[in-house]
Amino acid sequence: MKKIALYPGTFDPITNGHIDILKKATEIFDHVVLAVAEDTGKNTQFSLDERKKLCTEATAQIERVKVDSFPGLVVDYAKKIGAVAMIRGLRAVSDFEYELQIALMNKQIDSGINTIFLVPDYKYLYLSSSLIKQIIRLGGVLDEFIPPCVGQALKAKTNNTDNC
Amino acid sequence: MKKIALYPGTFDPITNGHIDILKKATEIFDHVVLAVAEDTGKNTQFSLDERKKLCTEATAQIERVKVDSFPGLVVDYAKKIGAVAMIRGLRAVSDFEYELQIALMNKQIDSGINTIFLVPDYKYLYLSSSLIKQIIRLGGVLDEFIPPCVGQALKAKTNNTDNC
Amino acid sequence: MKKIALYPGTFDPITNGHIDILKKATEIFDHVVLAVAEDTGKNTQFSLDERKKLCTEATAQIERVKVDSFPGLVVDYAKKIGAVAMIRGLRAVSDFEYELQIALMNKQIDSGINTIFLVPDYKYLYLSSSLIKQIIRLGGVLDEFIPPCVGQALKAKTNNTDNC
Amino acid sequence: MKKIALYPGTFDPITNGHIDILKKATEIFDHVVLAVAEDTGKNTQFSLDERKKLCTEATAQIERVKVDSFPGLVVDYAKKIGAVAMIRGLRAVSDFEYELQIALMNKQIDSGINTIFLVPDYKYLYLSSSLIKQIIRLGGVLDEFIPPCVGQALKAKTNNTDNC
Amino acid sequence: MKKIALYPGTFDPITNGHIDILKKATEIFDHVVLAVAEDTGKNTQFSLDERKKLCTEATAQIERVKVDSFPGLVVDYAKKIGAVAMIRGLRAVSDFEYELQIALMNKQIDSGINTIFLVPDYKYLYLSSSLIKQIIRLGGVLDEFIPPCVGQALKAKTNNTDNC
Amino acid sequence: MKKIALYPGTFDPITNGHIDILKKATEIFDHVVLAVAEDTGKNTQFSLDERKKLCTEATAQIERVKVDSFPGLVVDYAKKIGAVAMIRGLRAVSDFEYELQIALMNKQIDSGINTIFLVPDYKYLYLSSSLIKQIIRLGGVLDEFIPPCVGQALKAKTNNTDNC
Repeated sequence: MKKIALYPGTFDPITNGHIDILKKATEIFDHVVLAVAEDTGKNTQFSLDERKKLCTEATAQIERVKVDSFPGLVVDYAKKIGAVAMIRGLRAVSDFEYELQIALMNKQIDSGINTIFLVPDYKYLYLSSSLIKQIIRLGGVLDEFIPPCVGQALKAKTNNTDNC
Repeated sequence: MKKIALYPGTFDPITNGHIDILKKATEIFDHVVLAVAEDTGKNTQFSLDERKKLCTEATAQIERVKVDSFPGLVVDYAKKIGAVAMIRGLRAVSDFEYELQIALMNKQIDSGINTIFLVPDYKYLYLSSSLIKQIIRLGGVLDEFIPPCVGQALKAKTNNTDNC
Repeated sequence: MKKIALYPGTFDPITNGHIDILKKATEIFDHVVLAVAEDTGKNTQFSLDERKKLCTEATAQIERVKVDSFPGLVVDYAKKIGAVAMIRGLRAVSDFEYELQIALMNKQIDSGINTIFLVPDYKYLYLSSSLIKQIIRLGGVLDEFIPPCVGQALKAKTNNTDNC
Repeated sequence: MKKIALYPGTFDPITNGHIDILKKATEIFDHVVLAVAEDTGKNTQFSLDERKKLCTEATAQIERVKVDSFPGLVVDYAKKIGAVAMIRGLRAVSDFEYELQIALMNKQIDSGINTIFLVPDYKYLYLSSSLIKQIIRLGGVLDEFIPPCVGQALKAKTNNTDNC
Repeated sequence: MKKIALYPGTFDPITNGHIDILKKATEIFDHVVLAVAEDTGKNTQFSLDERKKLCTEATAQIERVKVDSFPGLVVDYAKKIGAVAMIRGLRAVSDFEYELQIALMNKQIDSGINTIFLVPDYKYLYLSSSLIKQIIRLGGVLDEFIPPCVGQALKAKTNNTDNC
Repeated sequence: MKKIALYPGTFDPITNGHIDILKKATEIFDHVVLAVAEDTGKNTQFSLDERKKLCTEATAQIERVKVDSFPGLVVDYAKKIGAVAMIRGLRAVSDFEYELQIALMNKQIDSGINTIFLVPDYKYLYLSSSLIKQIIRLGGVLDEFIPPCVGQALKAKTNNTDNC
């Protein structure tokens, strides 16, 4: 039976750190579903459609990956698609505690689904979507850390904001 | 193709925390090889044979698990058995940094093998083999945290030491 | 002389983790005052009256506990009620640093009052009010982590929000 | 050639912890430029002019220090003034990870500028601008942690808010 | 009924950080028993008798304190003396995780005894017995961090070692 | 006046992570003295002479660097050579707390000397001398992380040990 893994997240926007985790996941599992959360409980810079579109474009070259989105609880979606595991990237210590909290709670809500953590490559260990957004807003260039389509989308956002 | 995962460690001795991680791994992969390190770089309380025997006995009821041991580098052994991933349990923050260090270094030595981290059940999050050994040596009872065979082995060790 | 301890907090809303800490405190001190902060410096989901009412209902069965609220600085309230110590629950590392900061600052403002930290039971170590609120909003069930009255109040909040 | 160091920050408002770091920096470098960020990406309690004015007043007695402000990326400003290093104070662990992230990213944007971390005196290790603001708003006195001009400015802010 | 608290430890040797915690404990409880562990599971620089003697001398001026030692498990000793709580000092993050582990395990062995954590004064937050021993061995002076009797004992140890 | 910085350590053995920190230090200061501790308080794999010789060879191409060794307290040596600052590399969180402890204690022993922390390049953030020694002992190759002379010295050590 094919092993499907779920890689859920906000992806606001997707970074090369996310893509690195995704590639590692495809080396382990038969299929990986990257699923964008519809309800993130916070204001996102990009709309759900934008986040999904950027994920699709940025992962087009990676085989056995499908991009989707989900409403409600991630464990319900994981069960629906028959995932054997949920994947999360681990970076710094502060990340770790928050992720541990979520993983334990999800296990509590549905004991049938496990979370596994993957470590990104060295250079993505201290990368965050929010830091990237801030630097690009101030005029910085970060081509090594984001897919080209995300770079363009962030610049467009910045210019739009400046026009207001 | 069957997905094989490797769960390497010192297992000096195996605890119920290890067994919880092992069970979660069998829910994700087709087969899991629990492999005891021959060369740990430190003094172990139990010999390699003892550690391996306790692991075998403690995991006898778990399906699709094989106990083995390995010399040298864990990445060489992982490649030899065709593992798609190495599994490690994550507990506290101090654990996390050490494990991250090892995972990154192993990826450096052989980029073909990924480490994945699993979180044990709540009650094993702060469990450690060394703490268990210390408490049993002082006469404490910890049946909830170790398999029966390990409890007996630890008591035997304590009595032998007292006789010396 | 009776030993009174103060257990201050935002309690937005009270969880079973809070109640576990409160019970432990009553095993150590003669009386414990659970005091809800009136001025939290942030937006709370529940009003002061609601938070206080839920605390009262959820702790009704615990002896030697009184629920109150306080304006201004917690050290002033601690002195006013003659508390020998302020109690805080300790969970993860991120918690620890924040709590340490508050405890040191409170000691600076009034050196006559000490903060003591209690550790909750295993299963509440990674519990947070904000995570609970998010999961219930998405339709999850968390009966093991919150008192029944809090579960009902959260569901009522979620439904009201949906109607808007 | 004179060694110039840059000490950038939000300084909302400047505390005695910042001043302690600044003094240590002047013991190492020939000149130190304390530079207030114009674009902080968050709402500040004090305006740029207020933050700059408080920094100027609070550091008037320290030799070889100049107060300035900068728009955009801090690395661009560092290069413009010919700084050999950027200085940041290190306090708790949570600080450390965030600062590490920023330092690595800045190095990525411009490899010609290094960040160095200085540790403040014991009593400022757990001090934060946001905690100070909260305590003063509630009526607390913190003369040991903030310059007199900051104490007055915070009290004025609190009174103005109360009048609204 | 009098509230007795137990303050257990290795005290190899006792520092002013320990004494600060002890004093805070006497402000909360009626009596505090400082109990030196006989079996520490590691090599101590000072013998049990030396550690106990230094604790007695260093705490002679603090009222309502008794120095004792205990074999075996600390929870057994706590029950024997009728302690309502065990006290531990909390310093850095690494401390916190280790102490949390011990506290949870002790609660498991005997659910009738709680551990409470106290935070020392600022200047003792990063103090450790092992660092003190190393600095004094190298000829450093640390009068602010250790009682006079401990300073003399450490110097005597250093000289004896040099004579060998 | 020339600014001299001191980079003290055990260097057992020196790694490319140390060399990265050293190079960054030479970008900030006029001269940097890399000083090997004679008394480390622990067993080193390499003798003082070996550690010093490897440091000299590995840093031969870096300008304005001098290799030396020092007995006793590092602050005494820093004062003797007229250093304006002591340099330490910062890696993970566990590192940070230990280094903070040392920096605060050194400041206490001699308030005239400050410690500054530098962050190494991404790929050295989780590198440690002890992990390198363990991997090479097991037959791993780590050319990216150690200077060639250190690689040869470690292999020679391993072979000698095997012959015994």
